[in-house]
Amino acid sequence: MAGVSIASASRVLNGHGASVETERRVREAAASVGYVPNAVARSLQAQRTDMLALAVEDIGNPVYVAMMRAIEEVAAGAGYRLQVHATGADVAGEVELLDGLARRYVDGLVISPIRITDAHLAALARVPTPVVVVGSLPDDMPTTKPIDNVRADSHTGVGLAIDHLVAGGRRRIGFVNGPLDTVPGAARQAGYLDALDAAGLPFDPELVEPADFHYAAGRAATRRLLDRAEPDAILCANDLIAVGALHALLAAGKRVGEEVALVGMDDTDLAEMSFPQLSSVSLGSAERGRLAAELLLARLAEPGRPAQRVTVAPTLVVRASSDTAAKQENP
Amino acid sequence: MAGVSIASASRVLNGHGASVETERRVREAAASVGYVPNAVARSLQAQRTDMLALAVEDIGNPVYVAMMRAIEEVAAGAGYRLQVHATGADVAGEVELLDGLARRYVDGLVISPIRITDAHLAALARVPTPVVVVGSLPDDMPTTKPIDNVRADSHTGVGLAIDHLVAGGRRRIGFVNGPLDTVPGAARQAGYLDALDAAGLPFDPELVEPADFHYAAGRAATRRLLDRAEPDAILCANDLIAVGALHALLAAGKRVGEEVALVGMDDTDLAEMSFPQLSSVSLGSAERGRLAAELLLARLAEPGRPAQRVTVAPTLVVRASSDTAAKQENP
Repeated sequence: MAGVSIASASRVLNGHGASVETERRVREAAASVGYVPNAVARSLQAQRTDMLALAVEDIGNPVYVAMMRAIEEVAAGAGYRLQVHATGADVAGEVELLDGLARRYVDGLVISPIRITDAHLAALARVPTPVVVVGSLPDDMPTTKPIDNVRADSHTGVGLAIDHLVAGGRRRIGFVNGPLDTVPGAARQAGYLDALDAAGLPFDPELVEPADFHYAAGRAATRRLLDRAEPDAILCANDLIAVGALHALLAAGKRVGEEVALVGMDDTDLAEMSFPQLSSVSLGSAERGRLAAELLLARLAEPGRPAQRVTVAPTLVVRASSDTAAKQENP
Repeated sequence: MAGVSIASASRVLNGHGASVETERRVREAAASVGYVPNAVARSLQAQRTDMLALAVEDIGNPVYVAMMRAIEEVAAGAGYRLQVHATGADVAGEVELLDGLARRYVDGLVISPIRITDAHLAALARVPTPVVVVGSLPDDMPTTKPIDNVRADSHTGVGLAIDHLVAGGRRRIGFVNGPLDTVPGAARQAGYLDALDAAGLPFDPELVEPADFHYAAGRAATRRLLDRAEPDAILCANDLIAVGALHALLAAGKRVGEEVALVGMDDTDLAEMSFPQLSSVSLGSAERGRLAAELLLARLAEPGRPAQRVTVAPTLVVRASSDTAAKQENP
């Protein structure tokens, strides 16, 4: 259109030297077709934004903060910025976010949905950029494209907590779980039943109370549980629920760690910030974040590599809420 | 290049009808020049990404979670997604983020720096997209371009807390502040001194202990304070510090709310999640987020409007940590 060579046009548009007449003709032609000489336009060519994204249900849950910090560290080390999206566990919003990747506003995404629906799977099959899922993808996931997957093992994690409580002489172990229709809620429920069974303890439905994964629901559920039963221990499906349970126990005048042992899950900052400090099952949120970021970077470097599935083993961190001999404070 | 009219090329590239031959010629020509028919390319034309960003020091601090949720609600109502960046209070990182806006990967930014340096001001003067600053911009800010500003009033907020403690009969009011070289740290220190003065209480440097704005530092600072002084009340510069102080007080066997009254600032979820529940000065974090988002949308709609400066008034939320008559739990 400018009547100059492609090399000349490129020189002008990238700010390198050209004759005054060449420069004028190229700039006029560029303007007539709406050429925008900015970094986003250049990134289209390079197909890089140097930005990764993390999508989680609730940035207010400290388990995701730990995951985010780990991802950010790996991303920054490789020259990427990280942006974070809160999805509110809204399936439509998560699917829209996945489909939005077609706009290529980031180079890759780590997503941790608490439910994985058929709509998620269909969206994952469509996305043009790499996505790593933190959570449990189905084993029979169609393999039209490789989707890397980082998993926790909350079934084993619940078992660690129950074994610890049983070893401490607890026999009436209550359980305040999240919703059963979520991936973690279902896995933790199965873990609780299996661990009771392995310990030779009977299952008593009076000792189980549903909540959602938040503080207020955990407090209310524990209050209901205490109104009808006398647990000598309570396991909670995450630390937010456990902090709510701690509140309900203290308000009911229970000596936590003595009369009633309390264990949370996720081993977040909240566990250390509670008084008494809260025993908690670590599901390796930081480690899962680190692995997810590394898998994403590896996939960016080599898009065709086989899908990886990595499971992080849980550990139990014992503190004063379930063991009065445990130190009240870390050094 | 395709030998067809611009209108025909546009129809083909936007997926509308054209003859088979026209379509083939346009697609071949488009491919030969590397045309990328995606939404990012289209957004260059429209100069819209439908994305806003929020940059805060620490996503782990619940005060920013409340702000984020308010911004997200306003943004979603106007058809924008929100992405969040954690800056770690790193000045170079914040400036780099501001300069990154030249890439126009978002339509606008809300940033809440805890320090506002000359480098911030210079970067704000350079940015091509609208930025709203949550925090206190200098009054003599150069006005080469309008920068909207949403402020808290922590000086008045500290005064509300001190007045409440004095009215409750407290006289030896300790203060665990954040760093004095931060905007909030300096404002809260001045508020403490002025409020003591207004109440006719002497300033005792033994009762003041510096920390940073996090839990562990608050706990350690309160321990130091208790080792050398006998406060009958402690005001903390934010809720994370106050939860650390609560831990130190309970570990020292103090009856919080009776022997020692405790007040935090920011009125985050942590205040309600503590036991006893924590009195806290609300600096209107959700309200500031809402206002910041509205100012950003207004600026996007009308780039040339005069700069706005809005200050949100503080309120005090009294709970059991400073008033044993206060209800332990919200309904």
